[in-house]
Amino acid sequence: MDVLSQNTKEIINKHRNSIDRLDAILVYALAERFKQTESIGKLKADNKLLPTDSKREEKQFQRLQALSCEAGLDDKFAKKFLDLVISEVITRHKKLQNESQ
Amino acid sequence: MDVLSQNTKEIINKHRNSIDRLDAILVYALAERFKQTESIGKLKADNKLLPTDSKREEKQFQRLQALSCEAGLDDKFAKKFLDLVISEVITRHKKLQNESQ
Repeated sequence: MDVLSQNTKEIINKHRNSIDRLDAILVYALAERFKQTESIGKLKADNKLLPTDSKREEKQFQRLQALSCEAGLDDKFAKKFLDLVISEVITRHKKLQNESQ
Repeated sequence: MDVLSQNTKEIINKHRNSIDRLDAILVYALAERFKQTESIGKLKADNKLLPTDSKREEKQFQRLQALSCEAGLDDKFAKKFLDLVISEVITRHKKLQNESQ
């Protein structure tokens, strides 16, 4: 960033500081989300339920789409994000089921 | 979930409600994060700067690793998450640069 004016550098740094704070929110919210899904995973494993639940996933996609629209988040990105999270959740649910067998 | 006791169903629903609230936090935090990166993208495009910044990305990975450790988030997942977000940011920065040419 050597060619930039001091003012532009400061503006970029201000945005980067906001991004860093938002990343902390995201990491902690994701960690909390996985704690919640872990509890569900244990209950599912104890009750011999399937790790996936396509009805619930469909509801989540629809809800996320509405939320993304409200928040101004691109819904294609929101879908990629939910896919990443749900595939991780299912992997963990399966692991819990294998452990409980 | 027909085979489950009422109590187990209620516990699962409670966790799912928490997950839905966390998803709202995540969507809004992601939307805000993209607004911040959009401002940086515009400044970069106006100043003919590269859309990528490997030093900044390296710092972000390290910071996210430390945050994930603190929060109890699996750091492999955190890396996948940051990869998804950064690749989206770079795509958008490139788009802004093409538009400003």
